[in-house]
Amino acid sequence: MTERLDAQTVREWGRRYSNWGRWGPDDQRGTLNFITPERLLAACALPRRGRVVSCALPFDQRGPQTGFAGRHNPVHTMLATGTDALAGAQDFLPGGFRYADDAVSMPLQCGTQWDALAHVFYDGKMYNGRDVSLVTSNGARANAIEHIRDGVVGRGVLLDLPRLRRVNWLENGTAILPEDLDACAEAQGVSVESGDIVLVRTGMMGRCLAQKSWEGYCGGPAPGLSVHCARWIYEREIAAVATDTWGVEVLPNETADCFQPLHMISLRNTGLLLGEIFALDELAAACAEDGDYAFLFAAPPLPITGAVGSPINPLAIR
Amino acid sequence: MTERLDAQTVREWGRRYSNWGRWGPDDQRGTLNFITPERLLAACALPRRGRVVSCALPFDQRGPQTGFAGRHNPVHTMLATGTDALAGAQDFLPGGFRYADDAVSMPLQCGTQWDALAHVFYDGKMYNGRDVSLVTSNGARANAIEHIRDGVVGRGVLLDLPRLRRVNWLENGTAILPEDLDACAEAQGVSVESGDIVLVRTGMMGRCLAQKSWEGYCGGPAPGLSVHCARWIYEREIAAVATDTWGVEVLPNETADCFQPLHMISLRNTGLLLGEIFALDELAAACAEDGDYAFLFAAPPLPITGAVGSPINPLAIR
Amino acid sequence: MTERLDAQTVREWGRRYSNWGRWGPDDQRGTLNFITPERLLAACALPRRGRVVSCALPFDQRGPQTGFAGRHNPVHTMLATGTDALAGAQDFLPGGFRYADDAVSMPLQCGTQWDALAHVFYDGKMYNGRDVSLVTSNGARANAIEHIRDGVVGRGVLLDLPRLRRVNWLENGTAILPEDLDACAEAQGVSVESGDIVLVRTGMMGRCLAQKSWEGYCGGPAPGLSVHCARWIYEREIAAVATDTWGVEVLPNETADCFQPLHMISLRNTGLLLGEIFALDELAAACAEDGDYAFLFAAPPLPITGAVGSPINPLAIR
Amino acid sequence: MTERLDAQTVREWGRRYSNWGRWGPDDQRGTLNFITPERLLAACALPRRGRVVSCALPFDQRGPQTGFAGRHNPVHTMLATGTDALAGAQDFLPGGFRYADDAVSMPLQCGTQWDALAHVFYDGKMYNGRDVSLVTSNGARANAIEHIRDGVVGRGVLLDLPRLRRVNWLENGTAILPEDLDACAEAQGVSVESGDIVLVRTGMMGRCLAQKSWEGYCGGPAPGLSVHCARWIYEREIAAVATDTWGVEVLPNETADCFQPLHMISLRNTGLLLGEIFALDELAAACAEDGDYAFLFAAPPLPITGAVGSPINPLAIR
Repeated sequence: MTERLDAQTVREWGRRYSNWGRWGPDDQRGTLNFITPERLLAACALPRRGRVVSCALPFDQRGPQTGFAGRHNPVHTMLATGTDALAGAQDFLPGGFRYADDAVSMPLQCGTQWDALAHVFYDGKMYNGRDVSLVTSNGARANAIEHIRDGVVGRGVLLDLPRLRRVNWLENGTAILPEDLDACAEAQGVSVESGDIVLVRTGMMGRCLAQKSWEGYCGGPAPGLSVHCARWIYEREIAAVATDTWGVEVLPNETADCFQPLHMISLRNTGLLLGEIFALDELAAACAEDGDYAFLFAAPPLPITGAVGSPINPLAIR
Repeated sequence: MTERLDAQTVREWGRRYSNWGRWGPDDQRGTLNFITPERLLAACALPRRGRVVSCALPFDQRGPQTGFAGRHNPVHTMLATGTDALAGAQDFLPGGFRYADDAVSMPLQCGTQWDALAHVFYDGKMYNGRDVSLVTSNGARANAIEHIRDGVVGRGVLLDLPRLRRVNWLENGTAILPEDLDACAEAQGVSVESGDIVLVRTGMMGRCLAQKSWEGYCGGPAPGLSVHCARWIYEREIAAVATDTWGVEVLPNETADCFQPLHMISLRNTGLLLGEIFALDELAAACAEDGDYAFLFAAPPLPITGAVGSPINPLAIR
Repeated sequence: MTERLDAQTVREWGRRYSNWGRWGPDDQRGTLNFITPERLLAACALPRRGRVVSCALPFDQRGPQTGFAGRHNPVHTMLATGTDALAGAQDFLPGGFRYADDAVSMPLQCGTQWDALAHVFYDGKMYNGRDVSLVTSNGARANAIEHIRDGVVGRGVLLDLPRLRRVNWLENGTAILPEDLDACAEAQGVSVESGDIVLVRTGMMGRCLAQKSWEGYCGGPAPGLSVHCARWIYEREIAAVATDTWGVEVLPNETADCFQPLHMISLRNTGLLLGEIFALDELAAACAEDGDYAFLFAAPPLPITGAVGSPINPLAIR
Repeated sequence: MTERLDAQTVREWGRRYSNWGRWGPDDQRGTLNFITPERLLAACALPRRGRVVSCALPFDQRGPQTGFAGRHNPVHTMLATGTDALAGAQDFLPGGFRYADDAVSMPLQCGTQWDALAHVFYDGKMYNGRDVSLVTSNGARANAIEHIRDGVVGRGVLLDLPRLRRVNWLENGTAILPEDLDACAEAQGVSVESGDIVLVRTGMMGRCLAQKSWEGYCGGPAPGLSVHCARWIYEREIAAVATDTWGVEVLPNETADCFQPLHMISLRNTGLLLGEIFALDELAAACAEDGDYAFLFAAPPLPITGAVGSPINPLAIR
């Protein structure tokens, strides 16, 4: 990479890899449109074992947030408990019936998540040319998560970079290039097709869990996708990309004068669904065991009206 | 129904329809165990159209909660906005990158949801004989929602009672009996099999939406399953049951001296997964259109550690 | 009132009754500056009975919020309970020590409250000429509540309008004029002085409590101060005004084309501290009993950094 | 101190220093009863300067909580902003009126606070012999914070231990004995009287702020009151005690087999109001400047129904 990458490059690539208008002026689903009925049916034909693997990190106080960007880990509280029941506090309920209830308070970006198309933007516009003034304290009046409530289901492909390179994890700062993705797919004997949901494992989450420390996980140096993947994502007609890192992209970013350039191009211009903080180690082990890296994948977002993201429990059905 | 139903009946039927120990003393997944790899693979073979229908009610302030049991509708707040970006509040970020973030605070039982096996109990015990003292202000140390994080995926079957009876909705207080479920399945040309996820439509949610009022929806009179379905659920080896009502069961309950007797038997003793506040009207229309009432169904819960339930976005893949 | 009142009047009166710059360009305390050390010492000399009366409405789910402006009543949750302790869940603590903990989630405007000087604004500016772009999703970087953390203590005066008029409450839509305030003070034998905290009782809260309904309390028709009080407040050098209503002002407002004009003038231009949802009935009864309507008043806000308001428990010390 | 202190001592001293029944079987205010009308009037006569000093630590994400006991720092969110207004999102409001709203989510024990009399207990009973089963997930049905809504106002006395010992702060583990309190009062020329609110400064908070680290502040080793103060508090008829530490008491506790023994005796048996995480440095400087350590003190709790504590902004009026 000898060319100089900067905010101008990002804007130029944004224009080049744009899907604005591709699915009409009213579209709010972006690259999920690549998951056609045919693609979805083909994905349903993939499972051979009848096994499901969850790619969600547990949502609790041991999560990765340490205050970056004002985000915190989920706060789970109980509204009714078994101990209350034992102490007689529910004796007003007839016939012995007793119950427990609970609640959660959490930033939607604090754990395993999808970014809605209203999550990042630049120059006053977000996906499909909509004005960012639509994203107020009342939520996003366009490009919000509820517009993909009938997703995300399709063909999932895991690309396990650490396994390819025979390491436990990629080092912080490692930029994953399109050719790395292709090489990984080839080594794994899997193709990447239009409408695929591509899960890229870097090993970073496993490293943090092994080291019992999330320090730097959120916003700090990390392995991740190079901004050069923007073209690959666009041309391959990828439906979604997710990683086991905080922000998908390599950090520090390759653009000294621009933060998260791949988000800027791929989410805002290409209309790509991005997934973050995915737990991919169990899935990687399962795929390695039988050499099969494609599966039916389902990760429905909660349709929280006006939300710019959603916590999810992504399932690989194999 | 001439026999007298009371809390004693409930306890007796609880013993009769118990799966405690069936999948070992450590089991925390209950009837989801009926979804074997074979059943799951068969479910994956069902889709023919490549279409997905969400069964989630939007999570927002227009939801059904009006204070019953201290539950409230979701509170969605923004942590960063497009308007902030426009006003220059994010100018510390380089290269034009701007973003929006948000958060939610919600009871886990406030909308479309799964009940965990720690949600209801009686006589000091919950599913598989565990002590309810395990359910404290810190959450449930057993039978919590995270133990079904690899679910819920399987064969879904919709039973559309109002369509069978050519009404828009069942009246409040209508008890749905096992023979009603069988008659509905037969009329629809669908069988109910071991490991199925059975979605029972009463039309109540549609009525509330049509009447623009949730009054009485939560905890008030409602159509729903009769306590007599406990045996049917047990014998048919149903994996999960969900309805478009607040609490699955007919209200007022058939047991004058006992609240929610079907929960007591089926959830606590049978280990049944119960789903509530499902939005089934769109799915019903789709099924009616092509006369096909079975589908691949995926509704993964958020693995909130220690939670006694989870909001979900259930997907029917057809 | 034959003159026509509109948004232009409001802007003109805003200029006329402005205190911008009066206490320097850095001031963020507004009319609280009228409470000089001398005034405060004089207030401390007022109590004669050694009795304290709270003017706070309880903070709980029975509060007045019904959804207006997205506000909800306080949600109180327990993090540790006595029932947990009884069930042995705290047995890890040595020596028998057991405890209960709790939490609250609440809009800062949901109950008895102070409005910070960052709470309302127009034409892009708030008190003392500051730009409203300083009020972002991260909070208010100027005119926030923490700047009055050393308040609010001073001489309080209750003006009990319903008692003056021998009614239980003022009817909705009743505009309270400066001459009404003067007549009330005179009838009560109390003067209103520079630096006073003026509590105006309309009886509306008592009416809602008596009728067991908060319908219309938040944002609906209400008795309250006329916009003509802006001059009176300015000239009398009032430090703060509070009422037993949702929004201090008469509703519908006297300005058909402008919402809450007194807020616009008095809070933004005069720099007045406004208090809302005060519970004044018990204080009114105490004052009536001994004919003494002046007292030491203390209502410290919680210094929540960047907040545009604070829940409070205002105390009248008599 | 050669005598052995253990959980048995605590129970014995609990009996010895008990005020159960002293103010009747229905009392829920405990030692606040010592603040008689006469004492309150005497306190109002104390101020000489007309100055107010706040003893609250700011409530924000830079607060002291680091996860101990599941507590977190306050989460402040905006519901409406100036940036929204600038972007036109509030243009539905007539006449130019614009506004900002906000909310907070916080454990009631996370910052400057009062402990309610339902906060700690042992052997199944709390203050005045009430059963701890009254403290459920729905809150405390007795001894909750709302019962002291007409407080806390009285004579405040600051005891500045570091100043007495000519150090910046007391070292962790330093136990403050009754004779230390007496010596400090005498050196400062102030008496401690029945009904006083005693503020004990250790310097620990200032140390954390100076070192820019709250590590260990919550639950870790700390200077604080010795369990021997229980008798002093009882006999002197102290109304409330507050410190600039997390938990009032010296840590590690003097009772190896018992956690927070002074809480157990003084809060549960004596009915003492305890205040924690008070910011006392500014007050200490003010007192030192003029040699006057007694003042009118007002720290009203928020009457959150059923709460076992309340955040406060304590004011010293001098």
